[in-house]
Amino acid sequence: MGLVVQKYGGSSVADAERIKRVAQRIVATKKAGNDVVVIVSAMGDTTDDLIGLATQVSPLPPGRELDMLLTSGERISMALLAMAIGNLGIEALSFTGSQAGVITDSVHGKARIIDVTPGRIRQAIEAGKIAIVAGFQGVSQDSKDITTLGRGGSDTTAVALAAAMEAEVCEIYTDVDGVYTADPRIVSSARRISRITYEEMLEMAACGAKVLHLRSVEYARRYGVPVHVRSSFTDREGTWVTFEPERDDMEQPIISGVAHDRSEAKITVVGVPDKPGEAAAIFRTVADDEINIDMIVQNVSQAATGRTDISFTLPKTDGQQAMAALNAARDQVGFEALQYDDKIGKVSLIGAGMRSHPGVSARFFSALADAGVNVQIISTSEIRISVVCGEDDVPAAVSAVHSAFELDAEDEFAQVYGGTGR
Amino acid sequence: MGLVVQKYGGSSVADAERIKRVAQRIVATKKAGNDVVVIVSAMGDTTDDLIGLATQVSPLPPGRELDMLLTSGERISMALLAMAIGNLGIEALSFTGSQAGVITDSVHGKARIIDVTPGRIRQAIEAGKIAIVAGFQGVSQDSKDITTLGRGGSDTTAVALAAAMEAEVCEIYTDVDGVYTADPRIVSSARRISRITYEEMLEMAACGAKVLHLRSVEYARRYGVPVHVRSSFTDREGTWVTFEPERDDMEQPIISGVAHDRSEAKITVVGVPDKPGEAAAIFRTVADDEINIDMIVQNVSQAATGRTDISFTLPKTDGQQAMAALNAARDQVGFEALQYDDKIGKVSLIGAGMRSHPGVSARFFSALADAGVNVQIISTSEIRISVVCGEDDVPAAVSAVHSAFELDAEDEFAQVYGGTGR
Repeated sequence: MGLVVQKYGGSSVADAERIKRVAQRIVATKKAGNDVVVIVSAMGDTTDDLIGLATQVSPLPPGRELDMLLTSGERISMALLAMAIGNLGIEALSFTGSQAGVITDSVHGKARIIDVTPGRIRQAIEAGKIAIVAGFQGVSQDSKDITTLGRGGSDTTAVALAAAMEAEVCEIYTDVDGVYTADPRIVSSARRISRITYEEMLEMAACGAKVLHLRSVEYARRYGVPVHVRSSFTDREGTWVTFEPERDDMEQPIISGVAHDRSEAKITVVGVPDKPGEAAAIFRTVADDEINIDMIVQNVSQAATGRTDISFTLPKTDGQQAMAALNAARDQVGFEALQYDDKIGKVSLIGAGMRSHPGVSARFFSALADAGVNVQIISTSEIRISVVCGEDDVPAAVSAVHSAFELDAEDEFAQVYGGTGR
Repeated sequence: MGLVVQKYGGSSVADAERIKRVAQRIVATKKAGNDVVVIVSAMGDTTDDLIGLATQVSPLPPGRELDMLLTSGERISMALLAMAIGNLGIEALSFTGSQAGVITDSVHGKARIIDVTPGRIRQAIEAGKIAIVAGFQGVSQDSKDITTLGRGGSDTTAVALAAAMEAEVCEIYTDVDGVYTADPRIVSSARRISRITYEEMLEMAACGAKVLHLRSVEYARRYGVPVHVRSSFTDREGTWVTFEPERDDMEQPIISGVAHDRSEAKITVVGVPDKPGEAAAIFRTVADDEINIDMIVQNVSQAATGRTDISFTLPKTDGQQAMAALNAARDQVGFEALQYDDKIGKVSLIGAGMRSHPGVSARFFSALADAGVNVQIISTSEIRISVVCGEDDVPAAVSAVHSAFELDAEDEFAQVYGGTGR
């Protein structure tokens, strides 16, 4: 057997009992003849608790110090996990991101990995030990300061180490047993996807599926790391994310699933003069504040006024900042008014070969219409159709689309996987 | 002004409010024109909580992993303190023991400092910033693993950095306002000592005074670092620990104070053959288990049997291990029986010029006799007399000796400092 990289999220190591259970799984993997490198997140709500402490002492803590603070979380979980494994008779050594050679840029709070030099991890593995590595953290190349990769960064750490060490598989353990065709909390008949391509998984993650972090999927695709998303509470196979699609029959459109996202807001810029450069001025204003916008729609210009409306979506968390920036640029851009709506949701259908099958769009919009869902914005890619609708319409929209594309599990299957939540 | 090193203990940074108060004190020191390096312990009971977690996952956690775990404590407090200072308008950077250049040997849990290379601290200070350094921790020279200096190690970190950076003073902030002539919880009329020599402070610390850690005093004496022990809750001067004694009049014995210690146990080896090498065999047996013994007494040999009894004291925490080692060596050493007593206490009188003033011993033992205290073991040094008595006799013994040497504060003074506890 070869090298297996396993990543355990915060809920898998939330308390001493769970840490001991995870230790048993790791030791079993080792005893089956594998070398094992483990990436671990902070226990349960540790990170939120630490952020709470930080806001008590400073309204706007400096990024360097916030990273120093938050990285204590994985330090605790990784040391406890190493102890629990040691107690089962196999020596485990824990390593910080810095010790594991996770080199990043200097952007505190959302650093990007620029190199991985896992010399000490290799040494530990070659000595027959299990290496436990702190997820989410690294050290900056220039200043040698501690950095963090941002929320969900432990997935990225796991994939990056799997790539650098040419692991056979990167197993992502979580509290669900894989990627589903829809959120089982909304669609009780959603079924687990056994295999999905990097591209489809990227679209799923970008459209709101929270099982895997978007950056980790990008990283896995770039280095061809096979990722296996599975539950830390069962031995069942989960979802494999690889280059190969699920089926051989490429002539049929292959629908992976329905994703939804309630984390965005919509800004409408009303009465924009319909002349070249106006849209660019608006989006430059927002981009200058380092805010990512997602979907954009521009209405047909009204002949009488020579003006048009432009709507776009962006993370709710950036909403107030974007509104302030646009208001400040009002005279320069010359629009009439701003509207802000954070009661929206995005529903997306993801699947390969979608564009070449016109029937897909027709069926998608028929299902939404039959369910009485009013569509506000539409966006498509080669393997995705997304719409923005009212927030309250999201459950009906997801269910309708899921059924229309025959993604519902058969009855027996649904009884096993459906009603269990995630 | 010059460089001031300040050390704040766990109770001074136990919650967000206290951290903000400590931040104000640090900023005030900086604004008074000083460069400031701060050493900080883990918040309140963090270390005990982490040890509790460790014992939940492993009965005997490996030292390397325990050190990795415990060092997360200072990481939290130092980052929060840096944030709180930043919020007051002065930039502060936090550094782990490793980043601060605290190089140690590889003995996890009680590592010794072998070098201090504070290049990054100097850089921060020269850039006009305040440096916050994690106490208690370092990095091993050989394996580059994280180490801890043992309980109270933050005092040692502070003194070591003050020495390496040639600070004007090392201020140790704690929840008492200095070193007292006796524990104020026992002697309500105890008074604060304004100045004490390294030697006397060493004896006080070795004999149970808990304000300063023994190793930090040894370190301070070796490098001549002036130490100022003071309260983080007031601006009053505390106790200065330096080379110079309190008074100029060297012809009078100068009594510093009365210390007591309830942390030791007594082992009596009964019926030891009275011939050369027997005592050595006993103490070698104990020393082989790396147990430090403190006071020793050997009874006069009984002519009839040719045997004697040897008693010694040692930390209670090592008691069971020492008894097991001695029992195992019973045949080899040839004693008759072992007795174990952990209901003992040690009371010590510390002061310069004691040996050359015979009246001191006489007054000491008269005071104990008048108080009805039965003395079990006696030990003396140039500047100390210690006795072992029953645990229950400790308060009476301390009070009697304190009064006999006229250490009691005058009434008005006692009202201010006496009854406040420590």
